[in-house]
Amino acid sequence: MATNAARYRIAAGKNLSLLEFGLRRAQGPDGGLSASKYAYIGGFDGTSNVLAGKLFNIPVKGTHAHAYITSFTGLDELKTTTLAHNTTGEIQDMLSLCTKWRNELSQVLHVLASEASDGEMAAWISFAIAFPSGFLALVDTYDVRRSGLLNFCAVALSLNDLGYRAVGIRIDSGDLAYLSKMSRQCFKVIAEKYNIPWFASLTIIASNDINEDTIISLNEQGHSIDSFGIGTHLVTCQRQPALGGVYKMVEIKGRPCIKLSQDVNKMTMPGKKNVYRLYGADGHALIDLLQRSVEPPPEVGQKVLCRHPFQEAKRAYVIPTRVEPLYKMYWQKGNLVAPLPTLEDVRQRVQSSLQSLRNDHKRNLNPTPYKVSVSDDLYSFIHDLWLQNAPIGELS
Amino acid sequence: MATNAARYRIAAGKNLSLLEFGLRRAQGPDGGLSASKYAYIGGFDGTSNVLAGKLFNIPVKGTHAHAYITSFTGLDELKTTTLAHNTTGEIQDMLSLCTKWRNELSQVLHVLASEASDGEMAAWISFAIAFPSGFLALVDTYDVRRSGLLNFCAVALSLNDLGYRAVGIRIDSGDLAYLSKMSRQCFKVIAEKYNIPWFASLTIIASNDINEDTIISLNEQGHSIDSFGIGTHLVTCQRQPALGGVYKMVEIKGRPCIKLSQDVNKMTMPGKKNVYRLYGADGHALIDLLQRSVEPPPEVGQKVLCRHPFQEAKRAYVIPTRVEPLYKMYWQKGNLVAPLPTLEDVRQRVQSSLQSLRNDHKRNLNPTPYKVSVSDDLYSFIHDLWLQNAPIGELS
Repeated sequence: MATNAARYRIAAGKNLSLLEFGLRRAQGPDGGLSASKYAYIGGFDGTSNVLAGKLFNIPVKGTHAHAYITSFTGLDELKTTTLAHNTTGEIQDMLSLCTKWRNELSQVLHVLASEASDGEMAAWISFAIAFPSGFLALVDTYDVRRSGLLNFCAVALSLNDLGYRAVGIRIDSGDLAYLSKMSRQCFKVIAEKYNIPWFASLTIIASNDINEDTIISLNEQGHSIDSFGIGTHLVTCQRQPALGGVYKMVEIKGRPCIKLSQDVNKMTMPGKKNVYRLYGADGHALIDLLQRSVEPPPEVGQKVLCRHPFQEAKRAYVIPTRVEPLYKMYWQKGNLVAPLPTLEDVRQRVQSSLQSLRNDHKRNLNPTPYKVSVSDDLYSFIHDLWLQNAPIGELS
Repeated sequence: MATNAARYRIAAGKNLSLLEFGLRRAQGPDGGLSASKYAYIGGFDGTSNVLAGKLFNIPVKGTHAHAYITSFTGLDELKTTTLAHNTTGEIQDMLSLCTKWRNELSQVLHVLASEASDGEMAAWISFAIAFPSGFLALVDTYDVRRSGLLNFCAVALSLNDLGYRAVGIRIDSGDLAYLSKMSRQCFKVIAEKYNIPWFASLTIIASNDINEDTIISLNEQGHSIDSFGIGTHLVTCQRQPALGGVYKMVEIKGRPCIKLSQDVNKMTMPGKKNVYRLYGADGHALIDLLQRSVEPPPEVGQKVLCRHPFQEAKRAYVIPTRVEPLYKMYWQKGNLVAPLPTLEDVRQRVQSSLQSLRNDHKRNLNPTPYKVSVSDDLYSFIHDLWLQNAPIGELS
């Protein structure tokens, strides 16, 4: 999950905010909680999963649902229509303010006020009265341009009259590049016409089956999106629906164990090991090195032979400028033996680790595989034990 | 999950047993439990998930792990070497029996007894002493032919001497078609040579990244597998890693709701509805029909017009020979209002529903889509409400 999240972070770049919206598509409640936690660790900025926010202190971000809009039909359904001014406390009538703004803005945005949905505006007036400082609206229930944007701007400008700033919009369907640019253009026109500079930078969130390729393509086309809400393809993974990791026994009572297999990639590497990351002169990680735990660790400035675990002729000398031990003991014989890093520490570590990888390892298309090698000693150890355990056949 | 399981059942045919081995690859403990439950509902015969077996009364089936084998090195590690005869109760020495059989069988199977792993045989002697009636062995830790099969047959024949029948083997790597046929051939040779007929029909289980295509391909090649153990590609889904289902509001306080969208397939069908399955003269399901809940149900022998929900010209008259109401109320206003079917009932229903589908809907390659239609009344209702809610633009 964290790797998948980190891939989205790389695809999106540093300036876009990424929100995890995956609870409904994760496998069960605990799958959903894990997804929220590891999305944050991998570089996301928030989650719509309120329980995850509460348990792990992850910023909670989201918008209302389409059902909230469709539960209103007309303006006569509003039970409360007034809101107090943010600073003066003066009670004002939001309904008439919004209606006035909608009529005025229909000229500015070149749409018909009569064609915009009254139910949609009623829903937002109700929302804005309840959360005047948190007005973030899903604008595609009926039609982004002809209903959603007009109603949103009418309510946002009414809030502005009462001393509040709206947060922004979410677009959940259609051409996200076009609709986001069109929305930004509206906001800019209004910001300039009414001299409300912050209106130009209202937040635009996009969602709707977003995956890495969508983000890369949108970034290429150009868009005005500030933030992506990503669910399905973050908490499940199209490229790799299941992670083929396994636990295997490598040593018991000090004795190394090996599992051979008809498939060489199902073979295990025997014995207790240590693992180090070796860094090159430019500060990038060069290679990871597995050694037997009895071997002395590699040293900075000292030449070390790194071998491919199974291909005899693939090997290289490395002179590390930095050696990072990757194997750290946290849980031993039923006890925690080192303080656990906080979620924030782990999140930072993901980003700094990714920084230490060369860009060609991280590119989306044909990335260079990062090498994981074994020491000369471990190489011999594996292959001796292999030959020792593999029966010799007889051909006849 | 149940659909995925049912696809495996269709691919495997009726005579192969299917075991769910997916716990380690499902998303979290509750994802794993759901997977076991719905695999059984979809037509699997058992699970390796012991908790699911206990909670849902699903038959528990599995084998030991490779680590169990690799935890033994030699025959001197055996703490117990004797087993009582199943009927006479006479204590006998399993170790010497197995060693004798291994030497003898090496001639029969044309392999070298000295090349077979002693650790593997020690593990199985220990297992057989503990579970003499449940001896099911994973035979690919070192080499199926040169170690696994020889050791297995030695232990199985020793058990036979003591009045017990071994269960069979599991193969988890390599060419499953070849290895299963080779194993069956061994069993047949031994059955005939020692006049132990049941030995020829020992169970052969195959596992190792099995998916629908593997099963179809193995069935085409021919094999001697009795049972598949399927994990990863059952509890996660390569073809469709996430199910794009959503809940949407269609009616509130008796008033229908519609959500329009820039994408027509994200539009909702408004209003409370009923749904019927209409069957044709040959007993197969023809089409499902959605109606407004105020419409009278379709009747057997009466012509009913079924329309595509969005394509005006796509429609057909159907004269059903049977009408099955699909919408049944179980939970209403916070109460259970009908007895829930048992897991077995649901499992039966999956199979009988699948029986009622024509084969061309179920084939693996280019299946015919099954039609879901709307009544003429619902068609008009949707489209009237659509036009009523969709703003009319102005082109300029």
